[in-house]
Formats: sequence, structure tokens, C-alpha cells
Amino acid sequence: MTTEKSPRIDGRRPDEGRPVSVIRHFTHHAAGSVLMTVGNTRVLCTAMVEEKVPPFLRGQGKGWVTAEYDMLPSSTDSRKSRDRNRGKIDGRTVEIQRLIGRSLRSVVDLEALGERTIWIDCDVLQADGGTRTTAITGAYIALCDAVADLLDAGVISENPITGQVAATSVGVWEDMPILDLCYAEDSHAEVDMNVVMTDDGRIIEIQGTGEARPFTKDEFDQLMTLAEAGIAALIAEQRAALSDNV
Amino acid sequence: MTTEKSPRIDGRRPDEGRPVSVIRHFTHHAAGSVLMTVGNTRVLCTAMVEEKVPPFLRGQGKGWVTAEYDMLPSSTDSRKSRDRNRGKIDGRTVEIQRLIGRSLRSVVDLEALGERTIWIDCDVLQADGGTRTTAITGAYIALCDAVADLLDAGVISENPITGQVAATSVGVWEDMPILDLCYAEDSHAEVDMNVVMTDDGRIIEIQGTGEARPFTKDEFDQLMTLAEAGIAALIAEQRAALSDNV
Amino acid sequence: MTTEKSPRIDGRRPDEGRPVSVIRHFTHHAAGSVLMTVGNTRVLCTAMVEEKVPPFLRGQGKGWVTAEYDMLPSSTDSRKSRDRNRGKIDGRTVEIQRLIGRSLRSVVDLEALGERTIWIDCDVLQADGGTRTTAITGAYIALCDAVADLLDAGVISENPITGQVAATSVGVWEDMPILDLCYAEDSHAEVDMNVVMTDDGRIIEIQGTGEARPFTKDEFDQLMTLAEAGIAALIAEQRAALSDNV
Amino acid sequence: MTTEKSPRIDGRRPDEGRPVSVIRHFTHHAAGSVLMTVGNTRVLCTAMVEEKVPPFLRGQGKGWVTAEYDMLPSSTDSRKSRDRNRGKIDGRTVEIQRLIGRSLRSVVDLEALGERTIWIDCDVLQADGGTRTTAITGAYIALCDAVADLLDAGVISENPITGQVAATSVGVWEDMPILDLCYAEDSHAEVDMNVVMTDDGRIIEIQGTGEARPFTKDEFDQLMTLAEAGIAALIAEQRAALSDNV
Amino acid sequence: MTTEKSPRIDGRRPDEGRPVSVIRHFTHHAAGSVLMTVGNTRVLCTAMVEEKVPPFLRGQGKGWVTAEYDMLPSSTDSRKSRDRNRGKIDGRTVEIQRLIGRSLRSVVDLEALGERTIWIDCDVLQADGGTRTTAITGAYIALCDAVADLLDAGVISENPITGQVAATSVGVWEDMPILDLCYAEDSHAEVDMNVVMTDDGRIIEIQGTGEARPFTKDEFDQLMTLAEAGIAALIAEQRAALSDNV
Amino acid sequence: MTTEKSPRIDGRRPDEGRPVSVIRHFTHHAAGSVLMTVGNTRVLCTAMVEEKVPPFLRGQGKGWVTAEYDMLPSSTDSRKSRDRNRGKIDGRTVEIQRLIGRSLRSVVDLEALGERTIWIDCDVLQADGGTRTTAITGAYIALCDAVADLLDAGVISENPITGQVAATSVGVWEDMPILDLCYAEDSHAEVDMNVVMTDDGRIIEIQGTGEARPFTKDEFDQLMTLAEAGIAALIAEQRAALSDNV
Repeated sequence: MTTEKSPRIDGRRPDEGRPVSVIRHFTHHAAGSVLMTVGNTRVLCTAMVEEKVPPFLRGQGKGWVTAEYDMLPSSTDSRKSRDRNRGKIDGRTVEIQRLIGRSLRSVVDLEALGERTIWIDCDVLQADGGTRTTAITGAYIALCDAVADLLDAGVISENPITGQVAATSVGVWEDMPILDLCYAEDSHAEVDMNVVMTDDGRIIEIQGTGEARPFTKDEFDQLMTLAEAGIAALIAEQRAALSDNV
Repeated sequence: MTTEKSPRIDGRRPDEGRPVSVIRHFTHHAAGSVLMTVGNTRVLCTAMVEEKVPPFLRGQGKGWVTAEYDMLPSSTDSRKSRDRNRGKIDGRTVEIQRLIGRSLRSVVDLEALGERTIWIDCDVLQADGGTRTTAITGAYIALCDAVADLLDAGVISENPITGQVAATSVGVWEDMPILDLCYAEDSHAEVDMNVVMTDDGRIIEIQGTGEARPFTKDEFDQLMTLAEAGIAALIAEQRAALSDNV
Repeated sequence: MTTEKSPRIDGRRPDEGRPVSVIRHFTHHAAGSVLMTVGNTRVLCTAMVEEKVPPFLRGQGKGWVTAEYDMLPSSTDSRKSRDRNRGKIDGRTVEIQRLIGRSLRSVVDLEALGERTIWIDCDVLQADGGTRTTAITGAYIALCDAVADLLDAGVISENPITGQVAATSVGVWEDMPILDLCYAEDSHAEVDMNVVMTDDGRIIEIQGTGEARPFTKDEFDQLMTLAEAGIAALIAEQRAALSDNV
Repeated sequence: MTTEKSPRIDGRRPDEGRPVSVIRHFTHHAAGSVLMTVGNTRVLCTAMVEEKVPPFLRGQGKGWVTAEYDMLPSSTDSRKSRDRNRGKIDGRTVEIQRLIGRSLRSVVDLEALGERTIWIDCDVLQADGGTRTTAITGAYIALCDAVADLLDAGVISENPITGQVAATSVGVWEDMPILDLCYAEDSHAEVDMNVVMTDDGRIIEIQGTGEARPFTKDEFDQLMTLAEAGIAALIAEQRAALSDNV
Repeated sequence: MTTEKSPRIDGRRPDEGRPVSVIRHFTHHAAGSVLMTVGNTRVLCTAMVEEKVPPFLRGQGKGWVTAEYDMLPSSTDSRKSRDRNRGKIDGRTVEIQRLIGRSLRSVVDLEALGERTIWIDCDVLQADGGTRTTAITGAYIALCDAVADLLDAGVISENPITGQVAATSVGVWEDMPILDLCYAEDSHAEVDMNVVMTDDGRIIEIQGTGEARPFTKDEFDQLMTLAEAGIAALIAEQRAALSDNV
Repeated sequence: MTTEKSPRIDGRRPDEGRPVSVIRHFTHHAAGSVLMTVGNTRVLCTAMVEEKVPPFLRGQGKGWVTAEYDMLPSSTDSRKSRDRNRGKIDGRTVEIQRLIGRSLRSVVDLEALGERTIWIDCDVLQADGGTRTTAITGAYIALCDAVADLLDAGVISENPITGQVAATSVGVWEDMPILDLCYAEDSHAEVDMNVVMTDDGRIIEIQGTGEARPFTKDEFDQLMTLAEAGIAALIAEQRAALSDNV
């Protein structure tokens, strides 16, 4: 692809992701606490350990990783009402937090974790598209920090993390396949797809939706190519952030 | 693929779907009422027209198609508690009914529908895997019947349905890609994927999850090939059912 | 009464019930599963056994029979919203499911049942008046099938069912006492009464309401006479259905 | 019946009701406010007028009478938890408040009432059996006081109350039909029946339940005879209370 | 202060409280049951003992005192909707019942109480300002009656009540500091303050709010002087009521 | 007071507040967005304008200021469950957000604001005591930024803010009156008091509670002296932060 083929709303090339920044230890109560920024999307991803498991796992010697996702009311352009005021959780939120949980569990050996739960909380401080994929990418780092604490403290002896995981969004916008959509692109995309992959290029989750029209197998293949490259870059960012001895 | 490579739990070939049956006009209050059966999975899919739209669409001259999904308590092997008793809707249910709604809307011209809502209800009478894809496939037929009523009554003059839509599940089970998983297969599958496609072979939705392990691009491609063939067969079943003048 | 005195909305005599049909084993997960049809009212009645009892009965060596009732959204002429969406159960639903539970418990020896619960689910697929009485009449058959399974499997040695129970509605419509009201009659009846009786003609429950006006003791006696005959006919239908060796 | 046949728990004859007391204007914000006492059961029954009707009645020139019922936590021997803490209304409460509302509406000409609602609140201060029937009997007096206010103020010109209504409980206890059960009797009764009647002896509502066993038509007739006499006495008490010019 | 400086709405001097009446044993199920009247505000305050403690206290040998507060729908001039109908507890109610609980716990030695809970229920029968302070003042008496029962029955051997507690409201109305506001004053007060004190003049709780404007330290001091005198009078009323041997 | 009298847990003098930092424009969707830090307590305070008012104010030409408060699950040492999961808002949260709203409204001329609502959101990112007072102090700055936007845009012509407001906590800990309690102090304080004041030293709100024991008037006076000095310092910090032209 060439820059001529652009222009995207913010001047990026179709295959260009947004700038990434990672701040570890952003808050101090959680074992893992990462302020993950992708473009203007900022998500606080934390990991806290609880020394028990949900009822369906009790007594099996296995642990659990579960995630909750929320957006601060001020994270969006028009204020988003809190779920608690309506007494039920928004359907989109349910989908997203299930996705985050499944994605992280796919790289954790729950038996090696032992009978404990790691609670992942992803709270969006500022939203500009791609909040769920930013959450997964940041939560992986927080998870690593929490697991490192368990290893350091001798609570577990073997690292239960079996792989690295990151996620990005891709889509078709004005008939052009593009990587890492900002909100202005996302809200008008014809096709929207979120991809979660491991560091060895295998797929954990694909969720592709023809929002405005169905899409062809050929378009799908182009989107996968963009996603693979985008995720590889995020995997590298995660590694760099985790290599800092903090 | 050859039959040797089988044996699946119920003796099917890897690329063999389950028997399908369609009973239209199963109940008489709803404009469209289809008892859709795929193997031992039976879903009552109905379509009812309401002459108003949700608040966010009012005054725009456009219609809406929305779906609700539920399982009868007796539809599963151990009784499933009703959502109403816990005061909140199960997360899985939320995901599924959003998927059904998006899938059907993608083949409806909402402006041609006019300011009215078509309510799709998919109630599972008996579950044996693939309830969401059976729901989509059956709901499309119910939708056609409801739209035919509107056309017959002269309420709308143009058919708002722009394409045909059906869905199936595919998955990797004991490292073998297979079509249309029954519950016993689904509950032990390594990879689970639901695909929604149109009659011209374009994709409306893909949701693929590595339940037990990540999966490769090659596995993904095999699953898509199975899904395409499976959906083509369902599309033919829908056409046959709708060609009956009842 | 003579046919001259009619005509009822659907041409029946005042003392004439609607056609009845019973399909046992309609679905296959529940031990008892009956599609009960009375006129155009169709209720799926199932009975499932759970090997525990509610907290208030634990450790007493007694079982429990409880019922839930619901109407599919598409079962009525204008779509009925699901209770789960409002976060509370409709008052009418609460009344009906308590009535079904009490009616069935009155013919079950809970000690002979042992410490287990039989869950009765009555889901209305199509409503045309008399859904609660149809539910009771059908649920009795499902209960018998579930109990037969327990006896066959040797889980219990003695049949805990002590009698047969069926129910019907009667009412005063245009000053005429009539049996088994369809919806069009029920919605304009002056007096509405539901009666639940045993096969030996004893009363389990009477609920009579002067909807449009109070009613006299004489009217009440005529309604009871109609109900007795109607229930006797339903008792016979139950027996015929249960005599099939399926 | 003779006193020999007794002894009831509190020494009453089978056909003997409990002492009744009526305090009108017990609180001063509600137009009608009656502290109704039957034996040890005490219910505060109030009637308040609101100058609008529920949505389903708007613009039809008709009024509405609706009732709510509750028990104070301290009204029972072991403290009763408040419904608001469980986020749903107890099923028994739903049944009772629907019964109270229907009973009062059956003696009100809703067109003569005009487009306004009379809210009846029945709050049990102390419970000893028969709370629902005490509530109906007391609420009728509160309703009269509220209607008198409307007439005095010239808001309506015609009295919309078309009859007098009172209620009592009857039952079979140790195989003996008895009138006006106290809690100790009610909790062990074989048959429990609530009857609501007008001053001219017509029936508004009968709810009879074989709690411990079915009951015969003959038992039913004896219960009705007891109820008729009991209600006649309550009708007289209501008249006496309303004849005081306060 | 002189009477010239008045006139308050009901003719009281600025430092004049309303008439108080205490009826103990108003209902008979609760161990303590007090109908507390201050002016036209009437609150039924009850105390019931439950032989267990909340989960966070189990096994610590300590008891608990907790309070619930509610207003009957008919207690206010326009009918107050029941919290249970909205599925959540009104914010003001939450504040008030937490205040009542804290106030009473501050004069109870929870270890001397032993592992049991005293449930305080304060239900407003008629509201005219100062319902929360009337509730606290009356609940103290009910608490004493419940504790006396425990001592009489030998359940506990030492009186766990360590002091006496009462409460009043003070405020600035038309720039005049006044004691014990009635509703008409309270709803137009510039400053509103509730004070809870012990019999030895120490403070348990102060909640002062500048409703219409901030207030000065000098105004605050005048309000405290009024509150001290008002509470001393209520403390005397409590003592008088408790000295009756009933 | 002298330093000898200390030592507080973190070495501060009794009258010494914690370090304060203010970051304005922390996120970019809200008109006002302040990350307010007091010691280790960090609260994101935002202000967003909505061009409508709640129903009770419509058509009166007046505006509204309302606040919501929440704590992220990871803000505390052991993870705090989200309110939305229990379907109701925590009582403490209700109290706090009502306090924040009242405090800010007391320095806003609602008529000058015009018919619009300013939504204040205070989300605690990290908690170490004093979250509610930190929220008020930070929210005032966010409010100023939002109002400045309205003035800049010409939406309103007159500044509706009539004063400056800040808040702090004081308490008695180990019988020593201290300023600005951290969590370790707060959780063992005998007396806990929150004070909200204006820049001219007037009181907006006092909430003082004897947690472990009642407190004397003399102790109260010492606490007020500490609060006055602490709030004066915060008022100066607010002014400094707002004087930056950002």
C-alpha cells in the first residue's frame, strides 16, 4: 500500500497503527496497574489477585482469570450514563468483558496458577476507538506484573503464562481496508473486525461484522494481513515495556 | 475428506450437517412463526410487526429489526433457571440476541421497511448445539413471512429484504475441523466458530474462538470452507420452505 | 341447557368445552414433556427432577413440587414483553404459578417423593383463554411421566401421586354461565372463575371474581355444575393420554 | 352449632368472629385514614386522591382505584424483611394487593369518579391472621371518607360508590368449619377461604384453597354460610363507624 | 430570646420544641415497640432481637444494632411512592437509616450484647419535619425495652446500654436560629442541622447543611446552644417514659 | 501544637495536610477534567455540560449541578466490587455524591447558569482516605473550567459561580485532633468529621461522627480550627491551579 491511497481522517497510511504508550505501576494498590494508551484511547488496566476461585471451580486445584470492563462517564464525547443507574449492565459491555477474559485465559495455564483468581479491570479513561483491543493489550502487561509478584513472593513456583497476547481492530472504511480505527473511522466503517492473536501468530479470537454491508472473503484476507502486522507491532511494544525493571 | 477420517460422535462425516426441518405457521398470532429444527435443536422463531420504532430512530422514516433470544428451562439436560428470576439477562444471551439482530438487519433495507419495528423472537424449545445459528436461519424465514404480510396488506409497496441469510457453526474437535457441531462435540471443541453468510457467499459475521487453544490461519481456512458449504445447504432449505404457498 | 340459548362466539353450547389434544414426550430433555392443547390454547408443560429441595425443607425427608409459568412473547396477539426486561415478574404470572404449584402438590405425598424437587414449567406457546387451567391439566400428565421415570429407575419405590387433578375455567358472559371460555369471551365476561378438582370430585381451588359486577349464590352454583362436568371430561382425556404406552 | 363443639384456640365458637374496632382519621395527610382492628390484626388503611389516571385509562373520562399492601417488618412474630431489600415484591403481596383493588373497584362507578385515581394503602401494623380481609373491610371505610371529601369540595357531584363491601376468612380446622381464623388456626387449617361480598349478599370474590387436602362441596357450602354471617356483621360495623359525624 | 422575636409559623418561640408523647408497647410482636410523637410527626419505632449477626461479625463474640427507616405512602401530603416499586432505596432513606444505626450503636457495648442483632425499624406513620430525629429518640426507648427483655430472660447478664441518646433538628429560618423545625419551616430553612447527643452532653453526630446559603461559625454556635437544650428536654421525656413500669 | 505531640503514622504534625497536586485537562472529552491528588488519594474530577435539566426544573429558567462518585475496583487495597454487579448503589456512595452535589450548588447561581445541567463525575483512581473531600476540592476546579468554556463560547454572559469551595477531613485519633486523615488514621479514628467551607470562611456542610465514642464540644472546636486552616490552604492551591492559563 502507498500513502497516495490514503488519506485517512488523521492522515495515517491504511496499514499504520497509532502511537502506543505504556505506563506500568500507574496506581499502587493493584499488583499490576498499566495505563495503556493507543492514539487518544486510554485504558487503565489492572490485575489483582484474590485467593479463592468461583464456585464452579472450587476444589479442582485450578485458578481463574476474569475481566471487567467499564467506561468512565466522562470518557466519551457526550457523557455516558453509569450502568449501575439502570440496574443492568450494557450488552456491549458484557460482550467486551467476556472477550477480554477469554483472551487472557487462553495464555494462562490455570492449573499452574493454582486455586486463585486474577481479576482484570479495564476502565476506559478516554475513548477514541479500539477500547476493547487496547484493554486486552494493556491487560496482558498488568497480568504479567501480577504474576511476577506471585513468583517473587514464592506463592507459585512456575510461571503460568504460556504465551503473549495482543489485539487490534481492523475494518473497511470507504471501501479501504485499514488498521487500528479511531472513533471517527469506526463509527462509519462498513466492516469492523477485532482480532486477538498470540506472539507466534496464532488466532485466539476473530470477531468480524459487516456493519453496513456483507464483505467478501478477499476483503477478509486483506483485513487479516493488516491485523497480523498490527498485532506484531503491539507484541513488540509489550515486550519493550515489560523489559524495564520497575 | 473421507468417511474413514470420521468417526464423529453421531457418525457423521466431518463435512456433514444435520437433518433440517422447517414448519412455517407453527403458532398463529405472529405474522411469521417457524419451528426450525436442525438435528435435535429446535427453535421457535417468530416475527411480529409493531407500528413504531425505538426512540433513537423516531422521525427518520426508517424501520428497525430487533431480536430476543431465550431458552426454555426444559430445553437443556439440567434445567436452566429463568433469567427473570435473577433480575438480569445472562451475558451469553445478550451476545446471541445482538448477533441475531445484526444478522437480519444486514439484509433489510430499513428505509424501505418504513417507521415500524419487526420483533424477532427466538425461543429454544430443545437444545443440542448450534442454537444461535439455527435461530438466525429460522428467523430469516419468519421475517420473510412477516414482510409478505405487510406487502399483501399494502402497508409497504416494496420488499425491504435485500438478500438471504443463514448461519452455521464449525469447529475443531479432536484436531479435526467439522461442520455443524452437536452439543457433545461443542462442549469439547478446541475451536468454536459461528459464521453468518448471505446467499451470494459474502460474510455477515464471523465469531471464532480458540476455546482450548489458539488456532492457525490454515485451520481457519478449512473451517471457512466447511461453513460455506454448510450455509449453502441451509440457504437451499430456506428457499424450499418459502416456496410452499402456505 | 339447549343450543337455542347459545350462540357463543365460536358456536359452542354453554356447557361445551373445546377440543383437547395431548402430545407426550414433545421434547426430550425433560422427564415429562407434554404439549397440551385446549382449543387454540397451547401450553408446553414439562416436569424435571432435581435431587435437592429448597432450604426450608432440607433434612426433613420430604420432597417439593414447584411450578413456573410464562408466556412466549409471540403467544399473544400483540407481542408480550419478556418479564426479564423489566426486572420483575408480572403480578398475574406470580398468581398463576403459585396456583399451579399448590394444585399439583395437593395430589402428591411429599414424603413418599423423598428429598427431591419436581420442577414444573408451563410455557404458553399460543394463548386463547384458559392458559392457567390448561397448564394445570397438562402439568399433571408431565408429572406422572416424571414420577414413572423415578419408579422405573428404582429411585423411589412407592408412587407418591395420590390423586388426579385437572382444571377448567367457567364464567358468566352476557348473563349466561358458560364453560371453558376462549379469550374473546374471557375478556368480556362479567364473572370469571377457575376451578381445580380431583378425580373424586373434591375441590382443590376455587378462584371466582366478579369482574364487571358481583354475582349471586345461584350463579355460583350453576358455574360449579358446569365446572364439575368440564373437569370430569378433562380427567378422562388425561387418563386416555396416560394409557398409551409411550 | 353449639359451644360444646368448640373449643377453638382462643375459645371462640366456630361461627364467632373476633372483636372489631374502627378508628377513622387516624393520620391526617390522607383523605381517608382508618386504623382497622379485627382481633389482634391491625391494619392502617388509607385513601388518597391523585388527579390523574394510569396511562391505559387516559382520555377516557374514567377513574381508577388501585391498592398497595405491605406488612411492617415488626408486624409479625419473627421480623419480616422489607421487599425493597430484595428488589422484588413478594408473590403473596402481589396477590393480596390485586385482590384489594378488584374488590373496591367492584363497588365504584369509575365514570362517576372522573379522571382521577384513588390510591388505597393497606399497611399491616400487627398481624394475627386475616390481614387481607381486614384490609378490604377497613379500606372500604377509608374510600368512603375520601369520596366524601371529593363530594364536599364539589370536585364530583355524584357519589361513585355503588355498594358496600367487606371480607372475611373462613376455613376448615381440625375438620371443623370456622369463621375468622386467627394466625394459630390459619397456619394449621386444612382449607382456607377468603370471601368478599357486598351488602346485598352478592359475591365479589371467592378464593378457596385446599391447603392440606381437597375439600367437598358440602364443606364449601358450610364455609359459605359462615362467611355470609360474618360479612353481614362486618357490614354493620362499617355502617356504624361511618355514621359518626367526624 | 423573647416571644417578640418570633412569630414562627406555629407560634412557637425560637427555642421552643414541640409537644412530645411516647406510647410504649404500641404493637405486641416486637420486644420494643414505641409510637413516638413530636408535634405532628409520628414514628413507630420497634426493636426486635435476632439470634445471629451479619457475616462480617461472625465468631467474634460481638453483637450488632442495625436500623431500617421508611415512610408509609400516606405519611406525607402527596402520596410517597414505595421504594420497592422502583427496585431501589431512595438516597435520603439510606442516609437516614445509617444515621439511626450509628447513633444507637454509639451507646451500646456490642460485646456485652453478645452474638445477636437488634433490628431497629422506624416507620413514619405521619410526617411533619424531624422524622429522623424523632426516630432516633423513639428508637432508643424501644431498644431499652428489648434489652430489658433480654435481661429479664437471663439471655444476657449485664446491661449493654452505656448511655442515653436523643436527637433534634435545628435550623436557620428567615435568618433566625430555631429549634425543632416543622415541615413548613424545614422546607424553607436556609440552614438545616441535625444533632445527636448523649445524656452527658457529648456529641454523637452533627450534620449541618447550608441549604440556601453558607452559614457562619457564630450561627453554628447559636444552633448548637438550641440543640443542647432541646435534646436535654427529650432526654427527660425518655426517662419519664421508661420509668413507667409497663 | 508542637511536633513533639505527634508522631502521626506518616510523621506529619497534627495540623499538617498532605501534599496536593492538580492536573487540569487530564482527559479531553470533558469541558473540565482535573486529576486531583492529596497525598496518595487520587480522584479524576470532570465536569460536562448537558443542555437540559431534570424534569423537576423544566421551564423554570434555572440550571442544575449534580454529581456522581465512584471508586474503581482497583482503587483500594482489596478489590472493591462494582455497584452495577449488585444492582444497587452502595449507601456510602449515595451519601457522598449527594454531599458533592450540594457543596457545589451552594456556590452556583442556578439562574445565571440557565436551563442546563453540569454533570460532575468524581472517580477515585487510588484511595488513601479523604476521597470525598478531595473530590469536592477537585470538582470545584473542573466546574470552573466548564463554566469558563460556556463563557468563552458566549453561551452564558455572566459567571454563575458565586464563591470558592473546598473540603477537608479532620478527626480525633488516639485522642489527638488531627487534620487530613490518611486511610490508616481514618480507619482507627475515634471521631471523623468532614467540613466543606467557602473562601470567606463560611460553612457549607459539617458532618461529624463519633465513630468509637461521643466527643465533647471542646474537641469539636479544636477540629473546626484545624479544618479552617486546612481548607484555607486548599483554597490557595485551587487559586494557583486556576491561574495557569491552560
